[in-house]
Amino acid sequence: MATGGSDRPDHPLERLIFFSDAVFAIAITLLIIEVHPPHLPHNAPALDHLQKLVDLTPNFFGFFVSFFVIGAFWAGHHRAFALAGHYSDRLPGPNLMMLCAIVFMPFSTAFMGSNIGATVPTVFYNLTLIATGLLNIRLVRIATSPPVVSEEVPAETIAYVRSRGFAVVLGASCALLFALYDARWSQITLISIPFWQRLLRARTTRRLALAG
Amino acid sequence: MATGGSDRPDHPLERLIFFSDAVFAIAITLLIIEVHPPHLPHNAPALDHLQKLVDLTPNFFGFFVSFFVIGAFWAGHHRAFALAGHYSDRLPGPNLMMLCAIVFMPFSTAFMGSNIGATVPTVFYNLTLIATGLLNIRLVRIATSPPVVSEEVPAETIAYVRSRGFAVVLGASCALLFALYDARWSQITLISIPFWQRLLRARTTRRLALAG
Amino acid sequence: MATGGSDRPDHPLERLIFFSDAVFAIAITLLIIEVHPPHLPHNAPALDHLQKLVDLTPNFFGFFVSFFVIGAFWAGHHRAFALAGHYSDRLPGPNLMMLCAIVFMPFSTAFMGSNIGATVPTVFYNLTLIATGLLNIRLVRIATSPPVVSEEVPAETIAYVRSRGFAVVLGASCALLFALYDARWSQITLISIPFWQRLLRARTTRRLALAG
Amino acid sequence: MATGGSDRPDHPLERLIFFSDAVFAIAITLLIIEVHPPHLPHNAPALDHLQKLVDLTPNFFGFFVSFFVIGAFWAGHHRAFALAGHYSDRLPGPNLMMLCAIVFMPFSTAFMGSNIGATVPTVFYNLTLIATGLLNIRLVRIATSPPVVSEEVPAETIAYVRSRGFAVVLGASCALLFALYDARWSQITLISIPFWQRLLRARTTRRLALAG
Repeated sequence: MATGGSDRPDHPLERLIFFSDAVFAIAITLLIIEVHPPHLPHNAPALDHLQKLVDLTPNFFGFFVSFFVIGAFWAGHHRAFALAGHYSDRLPGPNLMMLCAIVFMPFSTAFMGSNIGATVPTVFYNLTLIATGLLNIRLVRIATSPPVVSEEVPAETIAYVRSRGFAVVLGASCALLFALYDARWSQITLISIPFWQRLLRARTTRRLALAG
Repeated sequence: MATGGSDRPDHPLERLIFFSDAVFAIAITLLIIEVHPPHLPHNAPALDHLQKLVDLTPNFFGFFVSFFVIGAFWAGHHRAFALAGHYSDRLPGPNLMMLCAIVFMPFSTAFMGSNIGATVPTVFYNLTLIATGLLNIRLVRIATSPPVVSEEVPAETIAYVRSRGFAVVLGASCALLFALYDARWSQITLISIPFWQRLLRARTTRRLALAG
Repeated sequence: MATGGSDRPDHPLERLIFFSDAVFAIAITLLIIEVHPPHLPHNAPALDHLQKLVDLTPNFFGFFVSFFVIGAFWAGHHRAFALAGHYSDRLPGPNLMMLCAIVFMPFSTAFMGSNIGATVPTVFYNLTLIATGLLNIRLVRIATSPPVVSEEVPAETIAYVRSRGFAVVLGASCALLFALYDARWSQITLISIPFWQRLLRARTTRRLALAG
Repeated sequence: MATGGSDRPDHPLERLIFFSDAVFAIAITLLIIEVHPPHLPHNAPALDHLQKLVDLTPNFFGFFVSFFVIGAFWAGHHRAFALAGHYSDRLPGPNLMMLCAIVFMPFSTAFMGSNIGATVPTVFYNLTLIATGLLNIRLVRIATSPPVVSEEVPAETIAYVRSRGFAVVLGASCALLFALYDARWSQITLISIPFWQRLLRARTTRRLALAG
């Protein structure tokens, strides 16, 4: 093959990646639609406008959290499929299920954002996150296993890419448990996701060192 | 041609596929917009939030059914156009008509989802499904016939890809007939679609064995 | 160049085409969002559901007309840029202006669809169509002129592709004039667009025969 | 590499560009969703329809301004990444942050458009614009620096592409200051953006002449 060497995936795989990218891009952009711009009567005082913006803080918060959560899932998909070299009929089903969870995010975000501090919407949001994370782990496993994975990918790269997926599930589980106790501050726990990623990375390094 | 062998379609065909993928991706994501997140007064009890979620069950049901229905049509489009090797002026019209039916799905889904159990919305949904299925059969036939189809595709692959298209029409027709009798449970019949696919596959195998 | 011969456009041109395709795809799919699914009380009689669907007829009509109008503009863009071989800084501006008119279509469609038969919305819709048509003619001219056009494209192909663009403007102008007299039936005139296309094609053939 | 020379970016870079293009395309198209088509009673006089259109003037104004602002950011992204030759892990984060600001634009636009002339929404809009501009400057700097930038890009091309980014920030800062004094006319100041671009271009030429 003349075009770009062996890491250029064949056509059906590209179409699957393309479709997934489009769904990620639409879901991430639709988040803003659920934040409704306030409309005030003509000549309303500036303080009223400011107050309306302040009232939207939880919605803005939900928007930003979900934007970077979906962005992180996109980056994970990107990272896993960069290692994929061949199309397989085992891909479309699990890929579609993961995308379904991503598409569901704008609903969960808006439900949490417009009922901030309430237990049920916050738990529901974290359940969506955990479900997305689990479906993602399954998809990443398929994309980095034969027959999909490219032959030249070293085993340790696969181990690192796979380990990352667990960070979202761990972070969201912490937030879920915290939400049962106090739903107003629980979502702060999601900041622990990069920490889990580093921890999992270190654990993978240790295991690889032991195995090698 | 040096790039990826003869199964790499030429440029206008790629642009048609790309446009179709984008429309599929947007339609599948817009489904969630029609599920409106409930907004409760501050300090509403957790049971009220749960009740609101339970009230949305039919909408969630409609969302999931249509997500996998559109996903299946995308996979069918994918499968048929993977066999296409050449662009033809006979493609854009039928392709646009099929996409028009896909774009219509979020409306039919929301109409059924927010009037669950009612006969007219359920019949209307299944009619949309049957129309999409028929337009899809027509498009798949064009994409897998000369001058579009790639020369190297074996006749049996074409036969299998074509036969799959009838499964949605058969499943939706069953659901339509069932809905006239009881619209509350009719949509369960859509689960029969994979069964029809297997039946049609077996029938194609038998016919090919007789012919070969 | 090894990849697909001289008709494979260079990268910045592809990105421009890609962006345009995505905008076309989103605009065409957003049309359905403006058709609001009716929600009736539980146990409403089937006749009420049917009546609600009948009430939506003008909205469905607007949806279908605009779907195929945007589809036709996409096909025209496709046809013109299939002849383009080089990127030029003169492209992005006029391309963005044409896309702006396309993005405006869902608004004009919903305004006409929910006030069917009223003069102002119908005239406004046809004005949008004429503006889109004129911006499209300008863009097609740039895409099929040096330095953008591919060197091997025969002059008559360019003449045919350019002539098509006038059909929408002529059809929408007829509908506009008709709407001033009777806005209820004026949009039927848009069916004349394919007739104008054939007429313009015949005229181009005659002119080319005289010139050749 | 046989495909299109060294300016053809490798695959992960293409996927990042593709995802960004899709987000730009969706954000630019969603702008129209926030302009709600007026619905009048049947047989309302034509003057009422006209009045409703006139009432929407600020929303149309906001739509057009933001359409070309997002279009300009897309063109800037396009221009910067045309110089990029290699993927780097330093790209996705800043790229996502810039896209987040772009996705936020439909909200800011609708907030300003439906409260036209009010100070807070106008200041908020210009703050969004400045934030987008600053995140864009940072992203352009990364895309035009090693290890991302293609080796053959001349230093002056990089200087020109980078200088452009400051024009939006300068124009929006002027509009912001003007808005504090008179929010009804301040947005006219955004027309100064092309003027700033020319000024910055001239300054870059002077500096390059001094340096060379």
